[in-house]
Amino acid sequence: MACMKTKPRILTGSLDRSYPPLPVDYVNIIEKHFEIVYHKDFEKDPDHFQDISAVLWRYGPSIDEDLLNKLPNVKIVATVSVGYNHLDIPMIRNRGIKLSHTPNVLNDAVAEMGLTLMLASARNLVRFTEEYKDGAYPERAPVNDVTPQFSGSTLGIVGMGRIGYTLALQAKAFQVKILYHNRTRKSTAEEKAIDATYFSSLNEMLPHCDFVMVLVNLTPETTHIMGAQQFKLMKKTAILANCSRGQTVDQEALVKALKAGDIGGAALDVVTPEPLPKEHELFKMPNVILTPHISSQTRKTRCVILKRLRLPTAPPIDRSVFSIFIITNC
Amino acid sequence: MACMKTKPRILTGSLDRSYPPLPVDYVNIIEKHFEIVYHKDFEKDPDHFQDISAVLWRYGPSIDEDLLNKLPNVKIVATVSVGYNHLDIPMIRNRGIKLSHTPNVLNDAVAEMGLTLMLASARNLVRFTEEYKDGAYPERAPVNDVTPQFSGSTLGIVGMGRIGYTLALQAKAFQVKILYHNRTRKSTAEEKAIDATYFSSLNEMLPHCDFVMVLVNLTPETTHIMGAQQFKLMKKTAILANCSRGQTVDQEALVKALKAGDIGGAALDVVTPEPLPKEHELFKMPNVILTPHISSQTRKTRCVILKRLRLPTAPPIDRSVFSIFIITNC
Repeated sequence: MACMKTKPRILTGSLDRSYPPLPVDYVNIIEKHFEIVYHKDFEKDPDHFQDISAVLWRYGPSIDEDLLNKLPNVKIVATVSVGYNHLDIPMIRNRGIKLSHTPNVLNDAVAEMGLTLMLASARNLVRFTEEYKDGAYPERAPVNDVTPQFSGSTLGIVGMGRIGYTLALQAKAFQVKILYHNRTRKSTAEEKAIDATYFSSLNEMLPHCDFVMVLVNLTPETTHIMGAQQFKLMKKTAILANCSRGQTVDQEALVKALKAGDIGGAALDVVTPEPLPKEHELFKMPNVILTPHISSQTRKTRCVILKRLRLPTAPPIDRSVFSIFIITNC
Repeated sequence: MACMKTKPRILTGSLDRSYPPLPVDYVNIIEKHFEIVYHKDFEKDPDHFQDISAVLWRYGPSIDEDLLNKLPNVKIVATVSVGYNHLDIPMIRNRGIKLSHTPNVLNDAVAEMGLTLMLASARNLVRFTEEYKDGAYPERAPVNDVTPQFSGSTLGIVGMGRIGYTLALQAKAFQVKILYHNRTRKSTAEEKAIDATYFSSLNEMLPHCDFVMVLVNLTPETTHIMGAQQFKLMKKTAILANCSRGQTVDQEALVKALKAGDIGGAALDVVTPEPLPKEHELFKMPNVILTPHISSQTRKTRCVILKRLRLPTAPPIDRSVFSIFIITNC
């Protein structure tokens, strides 16, 4: 117990949702440097934990003024995610608290999940596996059931950040024509490497695309960036994929567009709300693939992350916490 | 009817299986140049069809000595597939009959299906979609359900022909290390373009692979090229993918290896027999993805094929038939 006292305390966990606990591997690593305080214990007696110096957001806790008022010694709030739309950035910064998130470490995993979703959607993978399992093919051989193809198609990337660029490099190997819409245009060299065409207007890009991949950060400007008007501009055969945040897509408009046949299908790792209720009509559409927000969830991502860990024995609360927050990213 | 007489006759179709008829588009194209004779009509009165000059294999008919004895004027037998293991090549050649198949036109479609299967298997796509649809995640959020990753892994390609090479180029964009086993080694330039390492011994290659992709032609030498011994040599986490022919894999040994945990999973577009009976235990394994032999089944493949069509008005029976056989490839 004496040993525990020498370590700074870190608050993590969620009260209102029964997410699984931290994996043992991560607990072991974090406990080398911190005493972990779970939110449910903190809530019972906040005064006892006034010395907590870091908050690790991993599907909780909700980081609002009420919480931070109870934590006068917190120096950093870190989220295990790339996105930080769930954090009130100005409020946290105004208190002199540092912030960290986990850019770049997830690029490969998220980009390949984007490819996986587009390929699986193009080739009707889920439907074929389900029907095959259900014994549909002794009677109804699928030999005339032709599908779209990803190779040689035109892909429009909405949001050309780090993940978008990694995805573009992967798509390029399938002889895919890359179009992109982004706030800022890439350099000529970067564009050339992926042979990409820039569209300052999203609406002008959409009619050309066989696949549209949404990878923007969620901000007020990107909320519902894909809405009714956009779906009308897409090809009737085009597939919408989303690995960003559910709210970037106007989901009601998407359901209508799918029903009306305005677009060909959708492949979504993110939706609104998450998890999507079992009864939701998107689950019933044969041309929709839904995964439960698992784009970054690979073992390799964590291995890369663990290798990046360089913790001093007595960690200063800044970079070390950042590293630990990267470790626990899932 | 007079017009019909001027066209050569082409035999197609299967008696014993109720595969769907030729799509109307293809019938229209073929009928510009041929009178189509379906096998079921032929069988009723073979003597009436002695002038048939071509046979188009599309899931039938069975091209055996008995059939060819009834077709004294056949000049060409063409299969709509790349593989031709279902044809008795020496027997057909000995009769002076030409043969055609459809190499190259399917490379992109089959290679991308190979990538689709490996990515979907790595990222547990089918299981995640099924469980999400079944409402598994309100209770059991998948946040600790980490998966393998394709990016940055090591891929062993068994059979580095045209499709294998296309697939290697695609995989390379995911920073994948390419190993390959093939009868003949590629040129230094070809190897360099995909940064590939050659193994003359399949067994020496297997222990290094995270993914093993089978793309060999089916021959007596490649039958069961992946068997019990090979599965024992693979990593316990490795995923086997097959887009060649079911018989290249010893399926009983595969089932045993999966049950014993000798390998991590399988993603198979081809099996033995096809279609696989609904009751087969492969359908019950959560780490197995099965698609019903649809690797080449994309609309784009057919578009490419249609563009290649260069039929003279009065077709000589050789290249034109070849072209038509490419058209109908599915």
